[in-house]
Amino acid sequence: MTILGLDPGVATIGFGLISSEGSVQKPLRFGVITTPAHQSLSSRLSQIYDDATELIKTFKPDAIAMEELFFNTNHTTGIMVAHGRGILILAGEQCGVPMYEYTPLQVKQAVAGYGRAEKKQVMEMVRRLLNLKEVVRPDDASDALAIAICHARFSSSLLAGNTGSNVCSTI
Amino acid sequence: MTILGLDPGVATIGFGLISSEGSVQKPLRFGVITTPAHQSLSSRLSQIYDDATELIKTFKPDAIAMEELFFNTNHTTGIMVAHGRGILILAGEQCGVPMYEYTPLQVKQAVAGYGRAEKKQVMEMVRRLLNLKEVVRPDDASDALAIAICHARFSSSLLAGNTGSNVCSTI
Repeated sequence: MTILGLDPGVATIGFGLISSEGSVQKPLRFGVITTPAHQSLSSRLSQIYDDATELIKTFKPDAIAMEELFFNTNHTTGIMVAHGRGILILAGEQCGVPMYEYTPLQVKQAVAGYGRAEKKQVMEMVRRLLNLKEVVRPDDASDALAIAICHARFSSSLLAGNTGSNVCSTI
Repeated sequence: MTILGLDPGVATIGFGLISSEGSVQKPLRFGVITTPAHQSLSSRLSQIYDDATELIKTFKPDAIAMEELFFNTNHTTGIMVAHGRGILILAGEQCGVPMYEYTPLQVKQAVAGYGRAEKKQVMEMVRRLLNLKEVVRPDDASDALAIAICHARFSSSLLAGNTGSNVCSTI
């Protein structure tokens, strides 16, 4: 099974494609889509749509995973991220790929073993779990890999009948 | 000039198409796009994209106007609205229609004459300004007409050289 993790945004969208067999996950491709700050929001969203669609069509993942969005501090940024996230969901839907979302807590638990892990620890665990020599940069790509690993772990436990309740839900 | 006002959302998206000549605005079409609550977010966003694209291609407006999004109370609803708003912006951009956004204050000022007007007053003013017999229902369609009227008024004062600073900005 291949899983595409996406870390939504408008300026930078992280992506991370992994393969997952049982408890073993391997990195296939990761990186970021970026859009130029001087462009209008509409043309940036349009570029995100085109690039994400191309990514999904090229990678043909079996599933897409994204974090649920919570707004804590900066609402203006949150609105922008939600705009971009809507576009990613649309691109996935149009390509017919099932999508799953997890809370930040679930992602941290799945990757680092506990829900209050710090960002640095999660990045280090992504590196270890995927057998990479260096921590993945930029953060957005590492975050995207983390959410892909999270889906791999939840869905393999689902397959093994070891389910929590509603641990993953199609967007 | 024809202007399409859009009131974003996921469950209900208001639309209002008006013609504008100088200080006279006339209603052409208004209504709502709705998506079923039992469907997944991804399929609702996909439906919004299809319906909005069809609307824009059918109406061929010269401009699209939307309100800026602010989050005050319900963040979860706000995230959903922002998802849907991103989709509307994408649809407009792909159809090549210039898009403008206004603050709620600007809309109220343009339609009701002052920025702290209540919702009911704005709806009544939409009715009067467009010479309609009854207040437009549902609210979402009336809100969409209000934002279209707002753009008509700001852009006609722009054309007359009577500009404020940056009263309208392309999304």
